[in-house]
Amino acid sequence: MAVVVSELTENVAGEHAQLVIPITLFVAVLCLCIVIGHLLQENQWVNESITAIFIGSITGTVILILSKWKSSHILTFNEELFFIYLLPPIIFNAGFQVKKKQFFHNFLTIMLFGVVGVFISSLIITSGSWWLFPRLKFHGLTARDYLVLGTIFSATDTVCTLQVLHQDETPLLYSLVFGEGVVNDATTVVLFNAIQKIDVTKLNSKAGLRLIVDFLYLFSTSTALGVTAGLLTAYALKTLYFGRQVTFMCFTRSKIVLWEISGYSQTVSVKFGIHWNLIFQFAYRHASIREIALMVLMAYLSYMLAELFELSGILTVFFCGIVMSHYAWHNVTDSSRITTRYLFAMMSFVAETFIFLYVGMDALDIEKWRISKLSFGTSVAIYATIILLMSLGRAAFVFPLSALSNYMNRRADRTYKITFRHQVIIWWAGLMRGAVSIALAFKQYTFSGVTMDPTDAVMITNTIIVVLFSTVVFGFLTKPLISYLLPNSAPNNLSREESKILKEDMNLPLLSFEESATTNILRAKDSLSMLIERPVYTIHYYWRRFDDAYMRPIFGGPISSSSSR
Amino acid sequence: MAVVVSELTENVAGEHAQLVIPITLFVAVLCLCIVIGHLLQENQWVNESITAIFIGSITGTVILILSKWKSSHILTFNEELFFIYLLPPIIFNAGFQVKKKQFFHNFLTIMLFGVVGVFISSLIITSGSWWLFPRLKFHGLTARDYLVLGTIFSATDTVCTLQVLHQDETPLLYSLVFGEGVVNDATTVVLFNAIQKIDVTKLNSKAGLRLIVDFLYLFSTSTALGVTAGLLTAYALKTLYFGRQVTFMCFTRSKIVLWEISGYSQTVSVKFGIHWNLIFQFAYRHASIREIALMVLMAYLSYMLAELFELSGILTVFFCGIVMSHYAWHNVTDSSRITTRYLFAMMSFVAETFIFLYVGMDALDIEKWRISKLSFGTSVAIYATIILLMSLGRAAFVFPLSALSNYMNRRADRTYKITFRHQVIIWWAGLMRGAVSIALAFKQYTFSGVTMDPTDAVMITNTIIVVLFSTVVFGFLTKPLISYLLPNSAPNNLSREESKILKEDMNLPLLSFEESATTNILRAKDSLSMLIERPVYTIHYYWRRFDDAYMRPIFGGPISSSSSR
Repeated sequence: MAVVVSELTENVAGEHAQLVIPITLFVAVLCLCIVIGHLLQENQWVNESITAIFIGSITGTVILILSKWKSSHILTFNEELFFIYLLPPIIFNAGFQVKKKQFFHNFLTIMLFGVVGVFISSLIITSGSWWLFPRLKFHGLTARDYLVLGTIFSATDTVCTLQVLHQDETPLLYSLVFGEGVVNDATTVVLFNAIQKIDVTKLNSKAGLRLIVDFLYLFSTSTALGVTAGLLTAYALKTLYFGRQVTFMCFTRSKIVLWEISGYSQTVSVKFGIHWNLIFQFAYRHASIREIALMVLMAYLSYMLAELFELSGILTVFFCGIVMSHYAWHNVTDSSRITTRYLFAMMSFVAETFIFLYVGMDALDIEKWRISKLSFGTSVAIYATIILLMSLGRAAFVFPLSALSNYMNRRADRTYKITFRHQVIIWWAGLMRGAVSIALAFKQYTFSGVTMDPTDAVMITNTIIVVLFSTVVFGFLTKPLISYLLPNSAPNNLSREESKILKEDMNLPLLSFEESATTNILRAKDSLSMLIERPVYTIHYYWRRFDDAYMRPIFGGPISSSSSR
Repeated sequence: MAVVVSELTENVAGEHAQLVIPITLFVAVLCLCIVIGHLLQENQWVNESITAIFIGSITGTVILILSKWKSSHILTFNEELFFIYLLPPIIFNAGFQVKKKQFFHNFLTIMLFGVVGVFISSLIITSGSWWLFPRLKFHGLTARDYLVLGTIFSATDTVCTLQVLHQDETPLLYSLVFGEGVVNDATTVVLFNAIQKIDVTKLNSKAGLRLIVDFLYLFSTSTALGVTAGLLTAYALKTLYFGRQVTFMCFTRSKIVLWEISGYSQTVSVKFGIHWNLIFQFAYRHASIREIALMVLMAYLSYMLAELFELSGILTVFFCGIVMSHYAWHNVTDSSRITTRYLFAMMSFVAETFIFLYVGMDALDIEKWRISKLSFGTSVAIYATIILLMSLGRAAFVFPLSALSNYMNRRADRTYKITFRHQVIIWWAGLMRGAVSIALAFKQYTFSGVTMDPTDAVMITNTIIVVLFSTVVFGFLTKPLISYLLPNSAPNNLSREESKILKEDMNLPLLSFEESATTNILRAKDSLSMLIERPVYTIHYYWRRFDDAYMRPIFGGPISSSSSR
């Protein structure tokens, strides 16, 4: 494990215990989080992140007392652990489960928020803190530190957002905030790495241009890598046809294949004897296992390759997830489909809970508080300043960019318009800061989770406090805010057409997005005038034609469903 | 990661790359193994272990050339990696997927083989090598080394066995060899740890008694811990009722729940509006994710707790798997059932492949070959001696204990009699040595995977060669041997009743063992005389009554299916 074991475990004899104790503890607390999270799920004020943070801090307190006020955590934070093991499943699952229709319809707006927004926000936070921090008698930060500060506090927390907004209740908002979150993560990491490289003493327009070119290069190569990995997996699964003994009779969607098979094998057994039956069943199970393993490993491979080539693993694995759920997922047996869907969601869930647990535990790290020599008043002033700048920075791009997006979509129907109330929610929901901020802060201000410099310690405690505050306070208030601002958001008040589509989605819980896309084309075909008025639909329409004609025959996916209509 | 990164990666700059390169490489090679394993699955000579070993050694050669003949592996072996991350999923899956009926019917025989057998076998290997090694001009081993040697080469390889024998084709053999393998793993590890503790200079009957008492204590406490963890999970899942919004209409088994739900929610929506519908769907998905996470984490927690208390994690997690599949598995939603079944199998599959890949890669470790200063002739003589002693040691307990088992079951029907041909196969299939041997050898003879002592280096290379030889040669020959010795083993030649039961199993691929158990009770009830003649059935019958009356109402499971008949 990429962890440095703290003093507590060193007291216990034996090399073995160094790993066993922290793992046992974390697994036990994770179990507790799941059970308590379930018991509290009816509560509209508390979400799972907050639960995990609270349980984490309680555990931290217990450890602190047991270790005689020396250390509250049993693992020191290591950004390797975060970037190599915890982040990939979360982002991959996001790509795998995202409703692609919504995501691609709002693509331009999402990119505006996620890329331009981060630049604006970090500019405001950087310059604001540059101007304000010396006035609060807090000195010692270099130019690079200020730049990094802006980046760190521009990273919205995707994880938290997912728990507050629901894809089905507020589809547009969900798609915008979540899509922004993913692109934002990528942009932040890229910007962070770019800042590490540039020479801060020579900040001019050339360096700025360089930054943008770097960003575009990273964005395109990372995306290309993710798409390639996804397509390769889809092609391998389709060509090798792991479940060929069974898939040829799985064309009817209305029945679940497990029962299909047994029925089929009964018929076959008359001809081939029961032996065939057994080979058949064994091959089916084994095929599913291989398929699932291949999908998991290829997704992880794409992330690791991106990291190896110093690209953005987040973007790569996100697009890999999208491509896999669009093509590869259709080439596997039905058991594999169900399993992958839940497996990825489960992995992501556990990783998220782990992160928040850790943040809660880390908040009590006495050493860092001791090293930072600021008075209580100054500290609070600094937290308040950062939170204020964060809100300002976010407001500075959400409202103008929403207006721009509305202008671009001015001829589209009302569902794609971002109302002022929506804008307020987007602004608010994106104020939460999370694991990415923490990870970047540790990467910048510590050496393997340990810091001795007072200024660095202040930056770490700042980040932890801001993350805790924003997660708990903004997290608490978002659900009530949404119910207050959008009392009509509950789907039973939706227009009739929408509720019809919704119902369709309901009937096909695992296949919904495919069907919805088809419905869209049909609608698009019906009215040519609409098609002209709405360029996004046109692009989408041609993409679908290309997809059906060239991509799906090679990489898999249900062609029949659209060509038959 | 509990890995020490070798020289190769140190050439590449950056702390980040230290983890990224080995992980990327291993994941890529794993993907390759899966694809090639699939392509070769029709071949009766090659199994997946052999494929992985070959791919591993090819990768090793490539790395060796790239690193200019310095090192063939990118990770040095660390037994922590093996015991903490790779072994638990394999053993848990074994417990989860084992046909409990068969396992418990053959329980006594399995325990004889797995416990008494290991003692006999290691005694023979220890005394044989003690007598022969000095005659081969190989000196330098201490008394403890000889004892450890006996233990190491008494550990049969469960993983390989699973790939050669099939549960459906040769149920009795599978159950015996596999059951022995699991108990054997546990016994070996316990014995190994016991040898580390005892004072080898004072080997008397008291020390021997102490060893046996230690063993019994470890066996019972480990089993109790595993059963407790499993029951706790079952109870938590049943009481908390994660999927309560949906499970109350999942009582009909003949339909898959996903389609049930959507149908149901349509009806409900008339009454409650669509909003309910959405909560419903969301809760269902989220419930499944929580359930799966809880099962995975609790299983792992049981293993880690056993390790923490210095019990046998293998036994604990094995019994935890059995209890979970007997109770907990029935308390979850149907999606969770499918997912857990495939998820555990997949994790186990990946871990197994990884181990064999590693063994293949490690065989080319030039350094160890260089340190051991034996001549080629002596080395070969040592390998031959060990393999001979292994075969003798195994023969010395398989044939007598089989006779004993047949004597105990003398009144049972013919299906439970171990024929001479069966005995030969049991003897042969258990000759394969695998990951446990390697892990124990590294634990004994190296310090974090590195050894400088010539004698230790010889022991390591011995172990690797014996594992490679036994896996490849015995692995190659087992399938042909079975077809030669048991030409009637193919199920189409089974008796009519058996094939009927087989068919039943086929119809309920996910629920088979429950139904089979019920069938047994029915059969047992039918003939009281048979019940008296076969004590195992009697125990089983009373256990079932106790299970139905007390256990299942508390911990979950399908009571109705047996009480209704």
